[in-house]
Amino acid sequence: MATEFDFIHWLRRQIDSTSRVIIGPGDDCAVISRPSGLQLLTTDMLMDGTDFRVNEVNPELIGRKAMAVNLSDIAAMAGRPTSALISVALPKGESTITLAEGLFRGMKAIADEFDCPIIGGDTNTWTGPLVINVAMTGEPTGSGPVLRSGAKPGDWLFVTGPLGNSLARGSHFTFTPRIREAIAFHHLINLHAMIDISDGLASEALHIARESGCGVELLMNQIPPADGATPAGALSDGEDFELLFAVSEIDAERVIQAKMAYHIGFCTNRDSILIDDSGRRHPLNATGWQHSFL
Amino acid sequence: MATEFDFIHWLRRQIDSTSRVIIGPGDDCAVISRPSGLQLLTTDMLMDGTDFRVNEVNPELIGRKAMAVNLSDIAAMAGRPTSALISVALPKGESTITLAEGLFRGMKAIADEFDCPIIGGDTNTWTGPLVINVAMTGEPTGSGPVLRSGAKPGDWLFVTGPLGNSLARGSHFTFTPRIREAIAFHHLINLHAMIDISDGLASEALHIARESGCGVELLMNQIPPADGATPAGALSDGEDFELLFAVSEIDAERVIQAKMAYHIGFCTNRDSILIDDSGRRHPLNATGWQHSFL
Repeated sequence: MATEFDFIHWLRRQIDSTSRVIIGPGDDCAVISRPSGLQLLTTDMLMDGTDFRVNEVNPELIGRKAMAVNLSDIAAMAGRPTSALISVALPKGESTITLAEGLFRGMKAIADEFDCPIIGGDTNTWTGPLVINVAMTGEPTGSGPVLRSGAKPGDWLFVTGPLGNSLARGSHFTFTPRIREAIAFHHLINLHAMIDISDGLASEALHIARESGCGVELLMNQIPPADGATPAGALSDGEDFELLFAVSEIDAERVIQAKMAYHIGFCTNRDSILIDDSGRRHPLNATGWQHSFL
Repeated sequence: MATEFDFIHWLRRQIDSTSRVIIGPGDDCAVISRPSGLQLLTTDMLMDGTDFRVNEVNPELIGRKAMAVNLSDIAAMAGRPTSALISVALPKGESTITLAEGLFRGMKAIADEFDCPIIGGDTNTWTGPLVINVAMTGEPTGSGPVLRSGAKPGDWLFVTGPLGNSLARGSHFTFTPRIREAIAFHHLINLHAMIDISDGLASEALHIARESGCGVELLMNQIPPADGATPAGALSDGEDFELLFAVSEIDAERVIQAKMAYHIGFCTNRDSILIDDSGRRHPLNATGWQHSFL
């Protein structure tokens, strides 16, 4: 189980689908059926040393990120958040109270921005490093949840913003979850598939390809680099939390005319590739491209 | 913020109640309003060294406990579980896969027992100790969620099983969440207030007293000790995960006649006390009684 992805596949084999579970593990959110309609559910755990360094950053930014990554999962399905539950394991010490209050203020500010009430949680102290978990519910908008699995060969791929260098820029703390954009797009065009970019564009594009049973073709010179990002970074750095989505060619024209997002590639019925600035084609893998082929 | 309780009070002051949030932080579950009715939500985080020792116990038991404590929160509101989301921070190492699979098997077995589908999660590895978070949704049964706040002076207090010594007995891993009992009681009698006993009977009785605006009177010689538990342990050891509930005197007769639960005290309109085996009265506090008064 080297990666989260392997575990998700293992999980899928273990879990009996029941009639209430519409979408189980493996998409941005799970989807369950309730008498009133569908509900989105997602959870993310952030750990000191992996997702942030508690000694190097304001607790409010850590709290903000813990909430925002869940909001981004809801956005990736074009959903609207409805409630959040927070759990924390706080390191014992003199600054425990200050830390807890800062975390909560950061969580609450971004949750408020998207009308998502924090309804409960579980607070613990321990001798280990800071761990924060947020679980979030949401409701679909428009015609329902947008999955990873609906892309078709011939679709055009777009991203909602520049990519790369998020750790150096600090944007993995300060990014705005694309809730509003996703809901607007979902009303204006037919989103075939969508995902949020947490592990890097190449990796997320391959998730859409795998779930949709198609290939993707990424155009290196059209991927918009964020400030200070290299082209390779724009392709494979993580934690941008922009959205990647696939639409028909007709809808693609509307997206381009309205300057709603950046066109960065296509869905195909071939193996997934990257086309570099010189027009050369390279097999695409989750960390970018296979350097041995260059 | 010495205790979880203090943080809950601080949280309550921060959180704006919205019309969708029926019960926010401070009860066993949060309750939100949806078009189809009320939904219960709860979350619990378990950490190595606090809630279990990863080197001393089978991973399946750890996973079982992580799921069961959430089921117990749903039980405390007489709810029925509907879905679970799991998050783990797994220590990196040779046994990571074995650990993850064992945890999952333990979680799935007890979730299956209560028809609760595991619908998604977040899997991480890190250099820190094992942390597991479960977030769970549920639906109310019968006349709706049973809160902590509905007890009245004159009510009788009951517990669903013997208490104390759960760490030595290992029952904090193997307990059966009282989902079935709670739903049955909720149909048979009018449960004024209910809570699950995670922090010890004395502490939980005081929660009911505080939330209900009454006092409690616990009868030391009627508290059923579990195997190997001292009377003090039955009163204040934690992690029994039995239910404590308050009913009217008329319903109390039915509970006693049907041998549904153990009568252990009353609700009053006075300060909370413990009555010892000799009939002496002692002020009750969360860790048992105030020894200085003995």
